[in-house]
Amino acid sequence: MKTPICEMLGIELPLLAFSHCRDVVAAVTNAGGFGVLGASSHTPEQLEYELAWIDEHVDGRPYGADIVVPEKFEGKGQNLTVEQLAERVPADRRAFVDGLLARHGVRLPAEPVWQGGGMSDTIGEELLDVTFRHPVKLIANALGVPPQYMIDRAKAEGVPIAALVGAKEHAVKQVNAGVDILIAQGTEAGGHCGEVSTMVLIPEVIEAIRPIREVPVLAAGGIVTGRQMAAAIALGAAGAWTGSVWLTTEEAETAPYTVQKMLAASSRDTVRSKGRTGKPSRQLKSAWTDAWESPDSPGALPMPLQSLVSEPALRYVDTLAEKGDSGAQELATYWVGQGVGLMNRVRPARDVVYEMAEDFAEAAERLALAVED
Amino acid sequence: MKTPICEMLGIELPLLAFSHCRDVVAAVTNAGGFGVLGASSHTPEQLEYELAWIDEHVDGRPYGADIVVPEKFEGKGQNLTVEQLAERVPADRRAFVDGLLARHGVRLPAEPVWQGGGMSDTIGEELLDVTFRHPVKLIANALGVPPQYMIDRAKAEGVPIAALVGAKEHAVKQVNAGVDILIAQGTEAGGHCGEVSTMVLIPEVIEAIRPIREVPVLAAGGIVTGRQMAAAIALGAAGAWTGSVWLTTEEAETAPYTVQKMLAASSRDTVRSKGRTGKPSRQLKSAWTDAWESPDSPGALPMPLQSLVSEPALRYVDTLAEKGDSGAQELATYWVGQGVGLMNRVRPARDVVYEMAEDFAEAAERLALAVED
Repeated sequence: MKTPICEMLGIELPLLAFSHCRDVVAAVTNAGGFGVLGASSHTPEQLEYELAWIDEHVDGRPYGADIVVPEKFEGKGQNLTVEQLAERVPADRRAFVDGLLARHGVRLPAEPVWQGGGMSDTIGEELLDVTFRHPVKLIANALGVPPQYMIDRAKAEGVPIAALVGAKEHAVKQVNAGVDILIAQGTEAGGHCGEVSTMVLIPEVIEAIRPIREVPVLAAGGIVTGRQMAAAIALGAAGAWTGSVWLTTEEAETAPYTVQKMLAASSRDTVRSKGRTGKPSRQLKSAWTDAWESPDSPGALPMPLQSLVSEPALRYVDTLAEKGDSGAQELATYWVGQGVGLMNRVRPARDVVYEMAEDFAEAAERLALAVED
Repeated sequence: MKTPICEMLGIELPLLAFSHCRDVVAAVTNAGGFGVLGASSHTPEQLEYELAWIDEHVDGRPYGADIVVPEKFEGKGQNLTVEQLAERVPADRRAFVDGLLARHGVRLPAEPVWQGGGMSDTIGEELLDVTFRHPVKLIANALGVPPQYMIDRAKAEGVPIAALVGAKEHAVKQVNAGVDILIAQGTEAGGHCGEVSTMVLIPEVIEAIRPIREVPVLAAGGIVTGRQMAAAIALGAAGAWTGSVWLTTEEAETAPYTVQKMLAASSRDTVRSKGRTGKPSRQLKSAWTDAWESPDSPGALPMPLQSLVSEPALRYVDTLAEKGDSGAQELATYWVGQGVGLMNRVRPARDVVYEMAEDFAEAAERLALAVED
């Protein structure tokens, strides 16, 4: 199987897998796809450890890293500590969370500030330094145009840089800024996403950037099967960028109760809400998302302040949900796309890749038959 | 080109075109697709006239009709006149509209009740009687399971009956009720639509109905190009059901100022709102939709009461917009899907069919190359 992206990244199947879990990254890469480690909320030390582990397990096969440096965030240019950021969280939001949890019988223990919520001006550069000590074959960035140092560094290292976009206007901006690969992510995607569906966004983005420069476009949003990969390529995409489908694999670190919710969920059980990160991101509907979307909601805080409110609460909720606490189970949520409706079994990541490849080939055959006379 | 739907409907290209405009229906049918006349808001006399015109222009080629009989509507079982329904519109909604129009310098003339807003218990049966006096090859119904008399009549006439669905649960209900074809419509679609994107909905619906009965699924939502038709078939659909793309054809009766808005619009210029019919339907964003979606909105009325409020106002707005009234131009809107972002030229409907066929074949070839070794 060959598309321009296969040549560019040295892979057999035009399937990229974003995961925060190193095991998934390695499994997908070893099965002929391309694993991408989500490196946001890592410290440089943690990232070094994870990438070294991947190197040991992929035998030189290609993989990448996704370092999220948002174009805009609270405190940008002020290089604040997590503690300084935490001071900017208004008391009413903490009270709202305490009240919401209390209505579900959950009482949050007083804990130190969640360190993963940091978003300093230098952390991106530090993570990039760590990343380039490893043989990564792709750097990706979400949430706006990558910072110039990231683009320059990737060019200097000869590694393609990819950026996520949810609208054609953003695609044009990214191509003009010099990115090598676009990941056009439809509204059905898990995590941060825009309003436009994958079916429309892919051809619209390809059309919009054509006059500027030839840049491969990966399709993201809702893709959890090989037939959807095939659809993406029919739309003109160079391949598929996936995330949700790996959350219910054997390797994934998804909280066990959340995995059960995902397996039971239909495509209508997700919601695009600002309640987790401060920017619209798609996640499982739960008492948590309902509350932030309700008329009583105080409104989400800008990134990264909302995470300082949501992450400690939701991580604690996960631990209680796992112990069978019914209030916590109502609150539990995680990022996932509408494709969750097609995710019905726990499987090894490798098997998911193989099944997607088979389903991809069958879909291509179905289409070939439809155009025959 | 052949898919099961081509055999079933006697067409060459698995492309169905929904339009309220008889000229579009005939043009698509004559070009090798399948035109479907949207027959809601017709009187029986008007429908007879339109279908007779189509018969004269398609030389025996196949076409169909879409008769919208909602499963639920205000006054159901009471067989109310339009005037009786109009009495159920609360004064605050009329005041809201008057205020909204006034803010844009528009004053609605006092006019008799809009007759197209009728939704009696017998109108569907009357329209069906008219329809079956003509050689239709498909009956479609939106907004819930078709009434039993429609299913029975279609079976007796030997004409397949199709139903629109926006969720897998609805698909299961429809198949159990006996429909012959499902039209699975993604959230990117113009007009009434659900929350699930086409990319996810098609495989999810196919998977859900498989254990019940083999029913062809047409993909709808966002499809305005041949590459998207190809994507739909890769997803497992039997063909594509389209609507928006015909609104900017030469034949369409779309208000001229609205056509200009559509040509200029990107995929982000639509919104899913209850402000036009009382049920969520996708349409161009405008001052009208903004107002109904704003915190000051009194909320939409149930179907068909909302149409009694919105249609006279928006039809009058169209006439003013055409004369260059800037307030009316801000308010003007019409149903259209996110695919509007890919609709950039006015073309004859026939040319649209031919271009879609060509683009469809090219997309299939692209996919065939991607799976080759």
